[in-house]
Amino acid sequence: MPTQQLKAANTLPIKDIHIQDSFWSPYIDLVRQVVIPYQWDALNDRIPEAEPSHAIRNLKIAAGDEEGEFYGMVFQDSDVAKWLEAVGYLLETDSDPELEQLADEVIDLIGRAQRADGYLNTYYTLKEPGKEWTNLCECHELYTAGHFIEAAVAYYKSTGKRKILDIVCRFADYIDTVFGPEPGKIQGYDGHQEIELALVKLYRVTGNEAYLRLSQFFLEQRGHGDFYLEEYEKRGKTRHWYNADMINDKKYSQTHLPIRQQDAAEGHAVRAVYMATGIADVAMETGDSSMLDACRKLWHNIVSKRMYITGGIGSMAFGEAFSLDYDLPNDTVYAETCASIGLIFFARRMLQIEPKSEYADVMERALYNTVVAGMAKDGKHFFYVNPLEVWPDACGVNHIYDHVKPVRQGWFGCACCPPNIARLLSSLGEYVYTVQDDTIYTHLYMGGKAKVEVAGQTIVLEQRSEFPWNGHVGFTVQSKSDLEFTLALRVPNWTSGCELFVNGEAVEWEHTVTHGYAMIKRVWAPGDQVIWSMTMPILRMKGHPLLRETIGKAALQRGPLVYCLEEADNGKHLHQIRLLAGEEGKVVSKPALLGGMNVLQMPAYRDSDEQWGSELYRADRAVKQELIEAEYIPYYAWANRGPGEMMVWVRE
Amino acid sequence: MPTQQLKAANTLPIKDIHIQDSFWSPYIDLVRQVVIPYQWDALNDRIPEAEPSHAIRNLKIAAGDEEGEFYGMVFQDSDVAKWLEAVGYLLETDSDPELEQLADEVIDLIGRAQRADGYLNTYYTLKEPGKEWTNLCECHELYTAGHFIEAAVAYYKSTGKRKILDIVCRFADYIDTVFGPEPGKIQGYDGHQEIELALVKLYRVTGNEAYLRLSQFFLEQRGHGDFYLEEYEKRGKTRHWYNADMINDKKYSQTHLPIRQQDAAEGHAVRAVYMATGIADVAMETGDSSMLDACRKLWHNIVSKRMYITGGIGSMAFGEAFSLDYDLPNDTVYAETCASIGLIFFARRMLQIEPKSEYADVMERALYNTVVAGMAKDGKHFFYVNPLEVWPDACGVNHIYDHVKPVRQGWFGCACCPPNIARLLSSLGEYVYTVQDDTIYTHLYMGGKAKVEVAGQTIVLEQRSEFPWNGHVGFTVQSKSDLEFTLALRVPNWTSGCELFVNGEAVEWEHTVTHGYAMIKRVWAPGDQVIWSMTMPILRMKGHPLLRETIGKAALQRGPLVYCLEEADNGKHLHQIRLLAGEEGKVVSKPALLGGMNVLQMPAYRDSDEQWGSELYRADRAVKQELIEAEYIPYYAWANRGPGEMMVWVRE
Repeated sequence: MPTQQLKAANTLPIKDIHIQDSFWSPYIDLVRQVVIPYQWDALNDRIPEAEPSHAIRNLKIAAGDEEGEFYGMVFQDSDVAKWLEAVGYLLETDSDPELEQLADEVIDLIGRAQRADGYLNTYYTLKEPGKEWTNLCECHELYTAGHFIEAAVAYYKSTGKRKILDIVCRFADYIDTVFGPEPGKIQGYDGHQEIELALVKLYRVTGNEAYLRLSQFFLEQRGHGDFYLEEYEKRGKTRHWYNADMINDKKYSQTHLPIRQQDAAEGHAVRAVYMATGIADVAMETGDSSMLDACRKLWHNIVSKRMYITGGIGSMAFGEAFSLDYDLPNDTVYAETCASIGLIFFARRMLQIEPKSEYADVMERALYNTVVAGMAKDGKHFFYVNPLEVWPDACGVNHIYDHVKPVRQGWFGCACCPPNIARLLSSLGEYVYTVQDDTIYTHLYMGGKAKVEVAGQTIVLEQRSEFPWNGHVGFTVQSKSDLEFTLALRVPNWTSGCELFVNGEAVEWEHTVTHGYAMIKRVWAPGDQVIWSMTMPILRMKGHPLLRETIGKAALQRGPLVYCLEEADNGKHLHQIRLLAGEEGKVVSKPALLGGMNVLQMPAYRDSDEQWGSELYRADRAVKQELIEAEYIPYYAWANRGPGEMMVWVRE
Repeated sequence: MPTQQLKAANTLPIKDIHIQDSFWSPYIDLVRQVVIPYQWDALNDRIPEAEPSHAIRNLKIAAGDEEGEFYGMVFQDSDVAKWLEAVGYLLETDSDPELEQLADEVIDLIGRAQRADGYLNTYYTLKEPGKEWTNLCECHELYTAGHFIEAAVAYYKSTGKRKILDIVCRFADYIDTVFGPEPGKIQGYDGHQEIELALVKLYRVTGNEAYLRLSQFFLEQRGHGDFYLEEYEKRGKTRHWYNADMINDKKYSQTHLPIRQQDAAEGHAVRAVYMATGIADVAMETGDSSMLDACRKLWHNIVSKRMYITGGIGSMAFGEAFSLDYDLPNDTVYAETCASIGLIFFARRMLQIEPKSEYADVMERALYNTVVAGMAKDGKHFFYVNPLEVWPDACGVNHIYDHVKPVRQGWFGCACCPPNIARLLSSLGEYVYTVQDDTIYTHLYMGGKAKVEVAGQTIVLEQRSEFPWNGHVGFTVQSKSDLEFTLALRVPNWTSGCELFVNGEAVEWEHTVTHGYAMIKRVWAPGDQVIWSMTMPILRMKGHPLLRETIGKAALQRGPLVYCLEEADNGKHLHQIRLLAGEEGKVVSKPALLGGMNVLQMPAYRDSDEQWGSELYRADRAVKQELIEAEYIPYYAWANRGPGEMMVWVRE
């Protein structure tokens, strides 16, 4: 083992890709300049308006530096780990000695908080010593370990410093003595998947196959027997959470079936996609085609039956979970930001295994809509829940909307989404290209320079774009000498046609398309210029006829951006707006609006409640309608002008 | 006090109206032959498939007849009271010595369970002696008393037997020593309104003004100060319920404002309408116009902003409560059967105070739709929750539908709705007519004979109809001699025109209409025949433009009946059906369908998911549509053919 590695495409190391993009660079700068410092303050309880985190203090108490008691969630350590992971990515693109110094101090602290045998978890060390590994179902012990591992791999790769890597290797080695198929070990697995994908990262950086084997064990074991019930009975039937029955609700943590038999994405959405990511990682490394099939089934189920047009997943608040096929309510939706991030993780693994544009299409959809919507332009306010329709008056009154917030909130008590956005954006370079043999696959269109090893040479590929506002993308090949390779350009599912020019000359490309990529194979000369011009019409998107919540409605999309109506532009009672059929609409640039964007204007009718009277129901009489120009802004930009109504799917 | 009684219309005593109607008589027979015996078995724990009630056993234990402990809800006694109340009504129309014997035994038992000082409540007597009146907010102590009083009044009026009346008078007298504005008494009120309307009934039957004064006190006191918090602190901050914060959620029990300042119906819907009913009763008896204004405000808010087209009220499961104006989701709705019954109580009081057809229109709407839908044709299965749209596959999966059942359920643990249906249907005669001076108001159209005192004489008014299937209603006046009086015939809001014939001759009536009633004033001769023929077109009902859930949709109504699509007639995926504009539709009689009914057939388009493929979203392409004949059944008859989709509001 690994018996036979899949021939997977590689992502570029973050250090080798420098994003310079008018859309994304400000976000990445925001992560560096605001989110990470703000998160550091949060971890240290220095943000008066936020609930205390206590995460750093927990480590200090565990390290013996301070007196006190554990405070926070059972997985509070993972917040520190996610911060450290993002710091690792940031240091890979740009040095920052002060930040690195801070990180090194945190690493020292983590080291001191680690037990002599390698165990590392301040909740159990401080609050329930002796109870380690007795409640895998509910207590995120391996999940937290996984985040420490991901942080360590990121920090080691960027700085070359081994200390945190050694810490997590000792921890992983210890875990390997506790879990496994051998008699006397625990044949269990964590309630929240995470360690599975983390262990594969650790395997890749250390080459230690034990980590891959352990990841595979956790995945293979999942869904066999009744482990959570057994451990529950063994520990005396205690529960950590009382609001949900994680022990018996097997779908919640995807333990209802062995992973290869899971045909649909069930339960807690973040767990489901983290699991799928881990399965893909293990499949990639071991060549296990049945695991790859499991990934394809889960992928297909999600994207063809359980995903919002914004790339959001998880249609219900209860359990932050998937519900059933074609059940995608727009207003009571959950669509957690973290779940879309997990979907992006999953998509990238699938792109590495089999470069097909459908994976990149979904990755782009989730990234440009739900993920970007998740964070305000100040880097200090975030959405957990990403609705497609909001009526602020009803939020806080009708309790079906209790989880829906009409404006972004400050740092949360359970702070999973903000650091997840930070670690994704600070490693965004990993998602743009993959390279396999002599082919460079371009999955995302964003400006920047990438150092790419292809066909035995290292070249620099420069991309220039004003994406997502238009579809004209330029590439320059900077190589030392002529070199034959294939530049694979994704033909996105939102374009109505592309034109290709190489050094100013139109080039036929349609016949080269493979799995949704134009495969431009040629001997490239230094300085060769490529123009890839994707038309970007306003699309009237429709939902599958089995979707109840979209029938008779349309959503506007242009490029990867889904658009929405907001009260700020269209007044109250957005439900009274009905799009005219057959109208094309206008794209209007608004450079002064929320940092600059294109808006869409579309002729529509608007029902009026004038002349109706006070009757609640009455027999058919014509309602007064007026012709208006409905104004749409990109979904990601909603709720930046105070609370107001918002709507993605509009009657037609 | 009463300072000045309002000149209110009277309802007919139940004994004086004999309903003989092809639609209603089977329901009333069902109450007599099935519901009441079944409920008796339930109260005695003889229904294996239902949760034990223990209600009779609680009384026996309190009476010292048996050993044991209290079991059940804090208001378990009220189930016995509601059963006894319905028995009272049934005995008024038809004698049943065996049933009366049973009721007398229950009354004896209640008498033995009563404390020497008059107090009566088995929960407190058995389970928390000494804690009486310490948790009015949560423990329904006065609510339960109110139901005993209603039962006593009904039973006394039908049988003339005073025993139960004496029992509740002693109880009410005792309550009067505990509550009131005087120092040393409790200045409080029950969390669940009910005693207010019951005390007015008791006042009417006994003439004891103390009961009216006590009712008025409870209503006037409500919403002043912070009584629930004070009693909570006084009793040592204990709670009876943990799933809801009734102490601080003041709107839940309508204690957020004094009653005259309540502009909107808030909180638990049943409580709100029971309160409104009580206010109307007190206003009627005292002539307090500010109380009457309070009723009008609540009425107007409910019927013009917070009521489903089926007469359902309470749009959210959380708190079984109203939410906000124009928030009427069809699928996550609550619309408890009991709340519509309470709305009917309220409407009838308003009709007594000011005979306006709008009250009767709503009363009829609630009765023919939500109330009848609440009970299956077997009399043993009931709906608590009355949705306007159901997707059974999602019930039990998406937790926003946890309260929605796709088929009627057996007797409930908290058995409020079935006995409430029973007591309404067994007293239905009280809702048909009211009489004021020389005018007989006809509010509901249903066959039967009524003995009416009007203009100083007693006449018999016979009504014949095939309502609700057609609008041709016949009346015969049976008087001893010529008599001048007004027969007021409601012009329902669903008719497009009526014709009046007296003894075969067409009579102009339009100029006589007052508050929605045709006022047919004449000297009636014995045997005079009236034909009142209301056209009953298929109405395409629309919702107010501020209603989000009905916009772009239509609901079909004919007469008082709202219609719905069911999967049994139209296949799955009802959301794919779209009505053609401008089509009239057909009425088709189906005598063999579920006891016989008219169905509606309406041309419609149906989207097909053939040819769409597996993509969840795609840019505008025509969806294949087929022309179909959508078949509608009356809403009340839904869910009688197994679980299936149902939909009232259909796209147009």
